[in-house]
Amino acid sequence: SSSSKILIKGGTVVNAHHQVVADVYIEDGIIVAVRPNIRQVDVDAVVLDAAGKFVMPGGIDPHTHLGFEFMGTKSVDDFSTGQAAALAGGTTMNIDFIIPIDGSLSAGYKAYEEKTKDSVMDYGFHVAVTKWDEDVSREMDIMVKEKGINSFKFFMAHKGVLMLDDEQLLEGIKKCKSLGALAMVHAENGDAVVEGQKRMIELGITGPEGHDLSRPALLEAEATGRAIRLASFVNTPLYVVHVMSSDAMEEIAKARQSGQKVVGEVLVSGLVLNNSGLWDPDFTIAAKYVMSPPIRAAGHDKALQAALSTGVLQLVGTDHCGFNSTQKAFGIDDFRKIPNGLNGIEERMHLVWHTMVESGQMSPTDYVRATSTECAKIFNIYPRKGAILAGSDADLIILNPNSSFKITAKSHHTKSDTNAFEGMTGKGKVEVTIAGGRIVWANGELRAVPGSGKFIKMPPFGYLFRGIDKADANYLSASRAPVKRFTSSA
Amino acid sequence: SSSSKILIKGGTVVNAHHQVVADVYIEDGIIVAVRPNIRQVDVDAVVLDAAGKFVMPGGIDPHTHLGFEFMGTKSVDDFSTGQAAALAGGTTMNIDFIIPIDGSLSAGYKAYEEKTKDSVMDYGFHVAVTKWDEDVSREMDIMVKEKGINSFKFFMAHKGVLMLDDEQLLEGIKKCKSLGALAMVHAENGDAVVEGQKRMIELGITGPEGHDLSRPALLEAEATGRAIRLASFVNTPLYVVHVMSSDAMEEIAKARQSGQKVVGEVLVSGLVLNNSGLWDPDFTIAAKYVMSPPIRAAGHDKALQAALSTGVLQLVGTDHCGFNSTQKAFGIDDFRKIPNGLNGIEERMHLVWHTMVESGQMSPTDYVRATSTECAKIFNIYPRKGAILAGSDADLIILNPNSSFKITAKSHHTKSDTNAFEGMTGKGKVEVTIAGGRIVWANGELRAVPGSGKFIKMPPFGYLFRGIDKADANYLSASRAPVKRFTSSA
Amino acid sequence: SSSSKILIKGGTVVNAHHQVVADVYIEDGIIVAVRPNIRQVDVDAVVLDAAGKFVMPGGIDPHTHLGFEFMGTKSVDDFSTGQAAALAGGTTMNIDFIIPIDGSLSAGYKAYEEKTKDSVMDYGFHVAVTKWDEDVSREMDIMVKEKGINSFKFFMAHKGVLMLDDEQLLEGIKKCKSLGALAMVHAENGDAVVEGQKRMIELGITGPEGHDLSRPALLEAEATGRAIRLASFVNTPLYVVHVMSSDAMEEIAKARQSGQKVVGEVLVSGLVLNNSGLWDPDFTIAAKYVMSPPIRAAGHDKALQAALSTGVLQLVGTDHCGFNSTQKAFGIDDFRKIPNGLNGIEERMHLVWHTMVESGQMSPTDYVRATSTECAKIFNIYPRKGAILAGSDADLIILNPNSSFKITAKSHHTKSDTNAFEGMTGKGKVEVTIAGGRIVWANGELRAVPGSGKFIKMPPFGYLFRGIDKADANYLSASRAPVKRFTSSA
Amino acid sequence: SSSSKILIKGGTVVNAHHQVVADVYIEDGIIVAVRPNIRQVDVDAVVLDAAGKFVMPGGIDPHTHLGFEFMGTKSVDDFSTGQAAALAGGTTMNIDFIIPIDGSLSAGYKAYEEKTKDSVMDYGFHVAVTKWDEDVSREMDIMVKEKGINSFKFFMAHKGVLMLDDEQLLEGIKKCKSLGALAMVHAENGDAVVEGQKRMIELGITGPEGHDLSRPALLEAEATGRAIRLASFVNTPLYVVHVMSSDAMEEIAKARQSGQKVVGEVLVSGLVLNNSGLWDPDFTIAAKYVMSPPIRAAGHDKALQAALSTGVLQLVGTDHCGFNSTQKAFGIDDFRKIPNGLNGIEERMHLVWHTMVESGQMSPTDYVRATSTECAKIFNIYPRKGAILAGSDADLIILNPNSSFKITAKSHHTKSDTNAFEGMTGKGKVEVTIAGGRIVWANGELRAVPGSGKFIKMPPFGYLFRGIDKADANYLSASRAPVKRFTSSA
Ligand SMILES: [Zn+2]
Ligand SMILES: [Zn+2]
Ligand SMILES: [Zn+2]
Ligand SMILES: [Zn+2]
Ligand SMILES: [Zn+2]
Ligand SMILES: [Zn+2]
Ligand SMILES: [Zn+2]
Ligand SMILES: [Zn+2]
Repeated sequence: SSSSKILIKGGTVVNAHHQVVADVYIEDGIIVAVRPNIRQVDVDAVVLDAAGKFVMPGGIDPHTHLGFEFMGTKSVDDFSTGQAAALAGGTTMNIDFIIPIDGSLSAGYKAYEEKTKDSVMDYGFHVAVTKWDEDVSREMDIMVKEKGINSFKFFMAHKGVLMLDDEQLLEGIKKCKSLGALAMVHAENGDAVVEGQKRMIELGITGPEGHDLSRPALLEAEATGRAIRLASFVNTPLYVVHVMSSDAMEEIAKARQSGQKVVGEVLVSGLVLNNSGLWDPDFTIAAKYVMSPPIRAAGHDKALQAALSTGVLQLVGTDHCGFNSTQKAFGIDDFRKIPNGLNGIEERMHLVWHTMVESGQMSPTDYVRATSTECAKIFNIYPRKGAILAGSDADLIILNPNSSFKITAKSHHTKSDTNAFEGMTGKGKVEVTIAGGRIVWANGELRAVPGSGKFIKMPPFGYLFRGIDKADANYLSASRAPVKRFTSSA
Repeated sequence: SSSSKILIKGGTVVNAHHQVVADVYIEDGIIVAVRPNIRQVDVDAVVLDAAGKFVMPGGIDPHTHLGFEFMGTKSVDDFSTGQAAALAGGTTMNIDFIIPIDGSLSAGYKAYEEKTKDSVMDYGFHVAVTKWDEDVSREMDIMVKEKGINSFKFFMAHKGVLMLDDEQLLEGIKKCKSLGALAMVHAENGDAVVEGQKRMIELGITGPEGHDLSRPALLEAEATGRAIRLASFVNTPLYVVHVMSSDAMEEIAKARQSGQKVVGEVLVSGLVLNNSGLWDPDFTIAAKYVMSPPIRAAGHDKALQAALSTGVLQLVGTDHCGFNSTQKAFGIDDFRKIPNGLNGIEERMHLVWHTMVESGQMSPTDYVRATSTECAKIFNIYPRKGAILAGSDADLIILNPNSSFKITAKSHHTKSDTNAFEGMTGKGKVEVTIAGGRIVWANGELRAVPGSGKFIKMPPFGYLFRGIDKADANYLSASRAPVKRFTSSA
Repeated sequence: SSSSKILIKGGTVVNAHHQVVADVYIEDGIIVAVRPNIRQVDVDAVVLDAAGKFVMPGGIDPHTHLGFEFMGTKSVDDFSTGQAAALAGGTTMNIDFIIPIDGSLSAGYKAYEEKTKDSVMDYGFHVAVTKWDEDVSREMDIMVKEKGINSFKFFMAHKGVLMLDDEQLLEGIKKCKSLGALAMVHAENGDAVVEGQKRMIELGITGPEGHDLSRPALLEAEATGRAIRLASFVNTPLYVVHVMSSDAMEEIAKARQSGQKVVGEVLVSGLVLNNSGLWDPDFTIAAKYVMSPPIRAAGHDKALQAALSTGVLQLVGTDHCGFNSTQKAFGIDDFRKIPNGLNGIEERMHLVWHTMVESGQMSPTDYVRATSTECAKIFNIYPRKGAILAGSDADLIILNPNSSFKITAKSHHTKSDTNAFEGMTGKGKVEVTIAGGRIVWANGELRAVPGSGKFIKMPPFGYLFRGIDKADANYLSASRAPVKRFTSSA
Repeated sequence: SSSSKILIKGGTVVNAHHQVVADVYIEDGIIVAVRPNIRQVDVDAVVLDAAGKFVMPGGIDPHTHLGFEFMGTKSVDDFSTGQAAALAGGTTMNIDFIIPIDGSLSAGYKAYEEKTKDSVMDYGFHVAVTKWDEDVSREMDIMVKEKGINSFKFFMAHKGVLMLDDEQLLEGIKKCKSLGALAMVHAENGDAVVEGQKRMIELGITGPEGHDLSRPALLEAEATGRAIRLASFVNTPLYVVHVMSSDAMEEIAKARQSGQKVVGEVLVSGLVLNNSGLWDPDFTIAAKYVMSPPIRAAGHDKALQAALSTGVLQLVGTDHCGFNSTQKAFGIDDFRKIPNGLNGIEERMHLVWHTMVESGQMSPTDYVRATSTECAKIFNIYPRKGAILAGSDADLIILNPNSSFKITAKSHHTKSDTNAFEGMTGKGKVEVTIAGGRIVWANGELRAVPGSGKFIKMPPFGYLFRGIDKADANYLSASRAPVKRFTSSA
């Protein structure tokens, strides 16, 4: 078909490790060649002119919740609609979180397999671990060895629903290490959050601002620091999802400075929003900003941008989990009942470009690293994903740095009736998205193909695991233990 | 009697706030006058010449365990012998920890009342809280309102025996705040300690070095940071007992920099020892250093000294809890069974003087602050204790900066058959100790009087609580909550 | 006379080390007694009822510029009028900076002696060192040994006028150490400031906002860190005047954590203002905020408050240096010509009480420490000053915590036609000021007596110098140098 | 010739962005293909079996001093011998520092052109700026625009010889920014170093240990912090050469955390040595460790390793500057006269592999980044250098991770009669070095070809400069200046 051969001419091809003006030739979903002056051999090939534009790997969103059943309702975007929106925004792969059913990973896996039937782009899975016993431990084996999973997420909050205590968390982290799977944490002190929520209700603070006040940044910093120390104690890499505060970021920075392998994921909401919206007198507006950890006061955004720009934080996700106003209204009398989550899968690539590259804080290569490549590397699917190299999957975008974008619920492709980034504008527009070798977004038109998205298996022992065995052995031999002993009388 | 009137002539009288050459006159256990040139009116008065020497408040040890039943045995020094040793070392008051019996504070209180029958110097109590329920909460009221207790200690380690989880800890801290009592924590991550211990045993590391390796400084730093954040969340002062690592100290420093009221207690063992002893091939020697948190690697000692010198850490205790070699030998095949604890109540004043004042790191006034005054202030018994002022209790010492001391189990007054500071020497010798107006130590002779020690009631709402109500009110009014709301349609 | 005997009844007497309800009896300018229930013996004694009020040491302002000739003009308050304003605000002593004349300290000293003829309260001097040669070095000897000076200030900014380079600064710091005098620094990178100013002018930014933009906080942090390291290298205490940024504060905190003796002085302007005023469209308003280092962006104020509350910063000054609008207008076309300085000597005690004590961040004892006692101790005039003790000078205030104050140029006592704190209100009013045993402020009436103020000699080797010789000796002996050597062939 | 075609079979080809098992085909000095299963077409091609080995980009040493005239003598290795040694150790390019002659950059350039006549591998140049005037500024233009220079180094130490003051440094940094050239600093406080040296001599400490004691880490940290702030003030990237202390590293970490573009270069000596050697009783041994900044106490090495492992520091150089024992002996009576410098160009690749990769701290890809790729990127010659990609220069090595190395002056190829790393052994041996497409090191045999090394021009505006113009513009527009003003009367 016409979509099977594409020649992109004259763009600046940006990989995380290098940018260069070159042509890109695609055939049957694979990038075949990247070099200057590729001649068009096949007349059927679609030719795209990218002169003056950036040709970059399609975005990979490491953190989404499509079709997520949570807090008594279900996020509005399923894999089909959410991914379609992603494509319109330049993202060509997402990694979603499988939530166990009654603690069962397998049951959760099955349910998520079902959800992805109509996928319109490639995807992978993390698996959440929400209780701990021998069965769960065995299922983790299965997930890694049979199902293409290489990361597990542990909740340090959402007490009584998803949260593990430290003993369980430690067991989970150890198991991850043994499997070569990456341990991920949602880092907030769940006990204190419950206490904070009670306090707000007692004070008569029942609106969305109570959400913010009940779980301040110090509770995120605490749990982040705790997870980091536990991972250090086990000596295995750690991935901290949704770093929302400079306080948590500083814990990561400190650990990295001391040589620990900690990955920090920032969200687009954390980068470009602040908590003022939660004080909006209109509940509909205020409620749309409710997510956990909360979007923080102004200042945290700048600090997170700075940390991202120099690699203290590594990548940008969205925690995309849209709800409609009617769903958000479940919590009109009690912020604890407002479904947590907001959109971003469609907006991420634009907002990161504008905020980080247009502002001069990052280069295009940095941008590719933070929005795509680093994610592919961490989850061990590079260079199939996250690169524009011969042999890579043909997931890529053409971004025009001189075009503008505007975000509004009226025109967005996600299904929610509001948009957390309503009214934001900026420079740098994704004009073309190619996923799986097909042009799925061009001229403002979406051509997503239900069922075309593939599950991408992610093998264990990714790059973060290199050297761990040697480090363990070195530690032990340096410990000069056990000591040979005698016993004198005192 | 001859002991009821004492005139100390010509010494440098050191209070935490000022030092001056002056005479001190004592009558019936009370300091009556502090000024130059006090004339001797009563011929019965004992006159002590202190020219060229320092006259200072007797030491107050904020952290002791006399007659402590722990790990299946009992610490060798009871109140009588332990306090006698204290007097010989210039300490005239200790604050011990009441350990509940089956979780009951009252039962624990009663048992400790019994233990103190033969006290030879004044003492006070902290009360440990080792489980959480309504009864415990009610007993805390009684302790504060009726029993003269103003501090409670929570264990974040010693899992299954003493440890509370975060929910319980939070409840305890809240209760403390409401009572004006100081929350204290033993800060180590107890879950991880258990894991670390198992790991050592599995590796065949069963000796005292396994104690160190199983609970590294990062687990102390973690729990310290966690307790600090929880106390901040509740907005109440926190007292961290036995800060043993620079990592934990840095958590305290960071909190204090941001305006939080956190008190850090360092131990004399933390100041002057390092972990090398735990690797000694002689089990008897290695075992005597086993305490928790462990004495850390060289470098931590210097960092703790520095922090103490500038008030980043506030006071010095001992965690005095002596065991004999035969008791330590319970753990000859498993370090987990070595009773935790070492001596210090007799050595503290000398070692702190030598390490901090003789080294030039602290002045005599700083020394008095760190060994006596700050403790008296924190536990709200200043200026009755911790000061040489007219009206204060006559607990004081005469220290000769030009005399030397040497520490050895042969000559010490505590009952253990070893001494953790064996062989240490230094300058600055406590030549006279006066407790309750009596000369109890002079010319190397101890004249302790069993039963002469009094229980010192410590009233709640000490100085650390000043302003907390105002800060709470300001926080709330600054939060601009609750917001008055309407709801638009999306 | 009626003023020679005063009995203050029933107040809460606050010293830095203790607060207690007591009476205070004063005779001939000296505090004679502090104890409960002093009976009025002399019928001539004025009796003041202080029930429900705080009786505290009069404020000592460590940093003023009265009658200062600077930038081609002279600050509007001389010693007489500036000190009168101080008394109306509860400050009973100031320490001013002698500025050398053509680099000569003696000439400067003489000029300042003249300026103080009509002093209405006690005062002391720091001496600035604005060039370096053998003469200056010799004059420093004279200042310390004959003139009652124990501190010298070095400028790291004001290039070409006051600034020293690092070599000179090092010489100055070394000389200070040898004299037992405290080295003080104005810490900004003067070279970079000049560069920043040029840049602003080139950009057409000539207004007061250019003052802020030309010398950002990082230049203050840089110089603060540099001075700290140089003082550490010499091993002598350092006093950093006017810490205006959290960045500079963090340098101090870091040094103190590592055991270095660094004192940080915060200004009342730094505590309660932010830089928004410099953007005011009215030049008259904007210009009044011009001082160096600049008042920083919001956020720095809170950070400085927090650091002050826990003793990371030690005391509060004003840098009082008022100019009239007509003087400020010298720089209407060029912010570099706006005389630097603003008021505060009258407002400090009220604003610190309101901001720190009323907010719950500090206790009254902390307040006394930060506004009076610590200054007296640092400059070695405690307990003559900075304390309400028998024998201390009768400089004290009665503050009513339930009264309110309002600041406005209309009613203030300083001579400037504007007030940097215009319109500010708060709780906690100084109702009575007693200086030198005389009631100089009561019922809103000022009774300052020209010529009654005395110069207070400040002896060298204050408390910060204790232990330095021992530390030096220890350092050397620990260095294991010189090494005895032989030389092999390679 | 036989050397023009080389086929490397079956190795693990490691680039900084990816490692993969592949063959590498080289023709005429260029890498032609990198892919699995390259068939040997040309029978003349040399085939190398790399199975089980790593094929990596040749090392690039960013910091050498070949043929350096310094301290009255000349470093023993010239470009020919030093580079030959480099090849034997797996380094295929070095960037040396042109030192001006009488301040003239052009004169220096000419002299260095001469020195490189017999180069045996490719090289580039940084240019030192050792005075400041209009001529120097103009010469910087020429260097960048005509001579292939894109970096300039400023000395903050070596007072009176190489050192600039802050005003000059600022001018230099500004000039660098305008040219798109990278500013580099030798960061030590030169004024304080002179003071420290005098102090040592006065104390009779004239041996090598005096070198260490005279310039402690705090002086390095100070200057590092200062340079960072000045670069931030100018908003241009900064490269800190030879970061030797954790203190300096922390300054870099802090800056990077706040988003500043600071590059930290660590030396192999800083990574693997400590200062104990300077206390060796044998002058010949002690003197060989004298370099500036000094090698620090144990602990700094571990901290620098940790920072390197996570990218807080970016790359590893050597500061190779060998002197013979007879030259070192110039300072037998005065450490100030010991020529500063030690070897490393030959040892770097081995020692970094052993210390960082064998220890488990870094992966092979990290290793390539830190020893080669990052340098090539920073100096804007990537992917010609620093990569094994089709089109890159054929500079590469084959490292056998199972072979061992041993370092000793007896067998090394550099010309000095001692080796700072004498006796060190480790795993990971460079078995083959290919430079410019020629096998120059194999089977322990060196086949360097004098004159075969080419000067590599380095264009300005490398990747660190991306976004700076946008950041500048954003800063200005965010400053809301100039303000439009009116003037009220006060
Ligand atoms: Zn989450
Ligand atoms: Zn999520
Ligand atoms: Zn404990
Ligand atoms: Zn204890
Ligand atoms: Zn100043
Ligand atoms: Zn000033
Ligand atoms: Zn250098
Ligand atoms: Zn060099």
